[in-house]
Amino acid sequence: MADHELSREDEHVHYDFDRDLDPVLTVDSGDTVAVGCVDAGDGQLPPDAAPEDVRAVDAPGHPMTGPIEIEGAEPGDTLAVEILDVNHEGIGWTYVAPGAGFLPEEFPDFAVHTWDLDGDVGYFHGIEVPLHPFPGNLGLAPAEPGPHSTIPPRDVGGNLDIKHLTPGSTLYLPVEVAGGLFSVGDLHAAQGDGEVCITAVEIPGTVTVRLRLADRDVDSPQVETSGPFAPAGHADGETDVRAVAGLGEDVNEASREAVREMIALLVDETALTREQAYMLCSTAVDLKLSEVVNQTVVVTAYLGVRV
Amino acid sequence: MADHELSREDEHVHYDFDRDLDPVLTVDSGDTVAVGCVDAGDGQLPPDAAPEDVRAVDAPGHPMTGPIEIEGAEPGDTLAVEILDVNHEGIGWTYVAPGAGFLPEEFPDFAVHTWDLDGDVGYFHGIEVPLHPFPGNLGLAPAEPGPHSTIPPRDVGGNLDIKHLTPGSTLYLPVEVAGGLFSVGDLHAAQGDGEVCITAVEIPGTVTVRLRLADRDVDSPQVETSGPFAPAGHADGETDVRAVAGLGEDVNEASREAVREMIALLVDETALTREQAYMLCSTAVDLKLSEVVNQTVVVTAYLGVRV
Repeated sequence: MADHELSREDEHVHYDFDRDLDPVLTVDSGDTVAVGCVDAGDGQLPPDAAPEDVRAVDAPGHPMTGPIEIEGAEPGDTLAVEILDVNHEGIGWTYVAPGAGFLPEEFPDFAVHTWDLDGDVGYFHGIEVPLHPFPGNLGLAPAEPGPHSTIPPRDVGGNLDIKHLTPGSTLYLPVEVAGGLFSVGDLHAAQGDGEVCITAVEIPGTVTVRLRLADRDVDSPQVETSGPFAPAGHADGETDVRAVAGLGEDVNEASREAVREMIALLVDETALTREQAYMLCSTAVDLKLSEVVNQTVVVTAYLGVRV
Repeated sequence: MADHELSREDEHVHYDFDRDLDPVLTVDSGDTVAVGCVDAGDGQLPPDAAPEDVRAVDAPGHPMTGPIEIEGAEPGDTLAVEILDVNHEGIGWTYVAPGAGFLPEEFPDFAVHTWDLDGDVGYFHGIEVPLHPFPGNLGLAPAEPGPHSTIPPRDVGGNLDIKHLTPGSTLYLPVEVAGGLFSVGDLHAAQGDGEVCITAVEIPGTVTVRLRLADRDVDSPQVETSGPFAPAGHADGETDVRAVAGLGEDVNEASREAVREMIALLVDETALTREQAYMLCSTAVDLKLSEVVNQTVVVTAYLGVRV
């Protein structure tokens, strides 16, 4: 049992980071909190969502639960956010939103997948995707007054989408305002590095964290994790992995090329459409910078599922 | 025992990819070859190399052993290169070369570390770096006539620096010329994703490969590996890992920022100089694209050693 519980009812949810928001909970350093979170679709998507439903979503930002005030936190302090538990509720959504994502010109249409999640596995057109739930968006209020969009991540955290922030990991963030004002949302049941199609496996659920002032000096996000760097393999525990190398003039171009190559591979070898392959990349393909120094850059995309 | 052995004596070494080079060995599809390789410093660095020795290295490219002709290989075919074994000989070098690397303006001076390698571990100023030897540069002759630099990787392979090409992995390459003309060199005992300071743990050694024409259609490098995506942790087998998040306007900027943050962390928490920290990043820090779609990009640098 956590020391505190914070439900995802409307009065606990906000859509901007803002130092002038009133805290909905005050905790002592070291306390644990079970935080209910609305999914990134703001609870507006039906379980059998169609592309029109994605188009109709109307939210001013990510629904964030909080802010939580940490008693005694002051600018210059460091907050350790220990991730203790993240659960899902059996359902999730991945969607393509035109104009967003890493290959916007190449994917001009809305598309959506509704996930059936069962324990540690999610199902995508017959493909088993191993789940590793984590919070995509967690952070503190910036020092600068006024509302700050939940979309770009900042030095105080926010929409980091670091897939390794699974239970057992700790995120260190610099405190910029009195009380810190921590909020969390955008839970993901699984995500590939990059979150290329703009969404992961977006879920409602509960994340349990310990919020602790730490004797460490950071000015941007730092992470500790006791897990491996990346999923060790497939849902069945095997570790054979396929990868494609994207070559480009710089990291931007090589990264996009790696995603294109993986989409091509998936379309070639499975029954998936291009949009479906793009969504699978966003939820189950990891992107690593193989080399960034040899005139032509190599980014490698690793397929974490068996197709 | 491999079906063939190819030593690293001068007459087996070349410094460009070129379709008009005479093969030094012809093999049948499916044959194994143990290939001796000169280190990327062209065998010119002494075991106790100083920065002046690095400056004095004079080589027209990577020393590549080959080319090896695969009997019957034709343009349009695919060559599978199965990595069977890579050994080191107890010694290696990592160096900074001004003007090269991922942060060239920030590291204007020559620097070098000479490695003592013992089994699965290398030593860097008291830090144990787990070794995972692999060939950094392996590929085929491009279709276009004339010499091609060994530095930029291409669709036919070359200087890919994909650290997961360890034994148990297979690289698939498109054949562009009759016989394929496979060459390999630039062995690395360990490397971090990105190889940011321009070198990994550069070693002389022997790589054993199986060269096999594969019934697969590829037009750029593809990889299969039975290992995990990345080292599972430290030399002692534990998996606790520290990471820093680099935020930037695009993948280029976020990647550089992640490297800068990791260098700052290492300088702050250890006795390493900035140049040493840069070299440790190049050999033991992995770079992953956490998200590339939220206006501000996050690249996370994972420290694979305990400091």
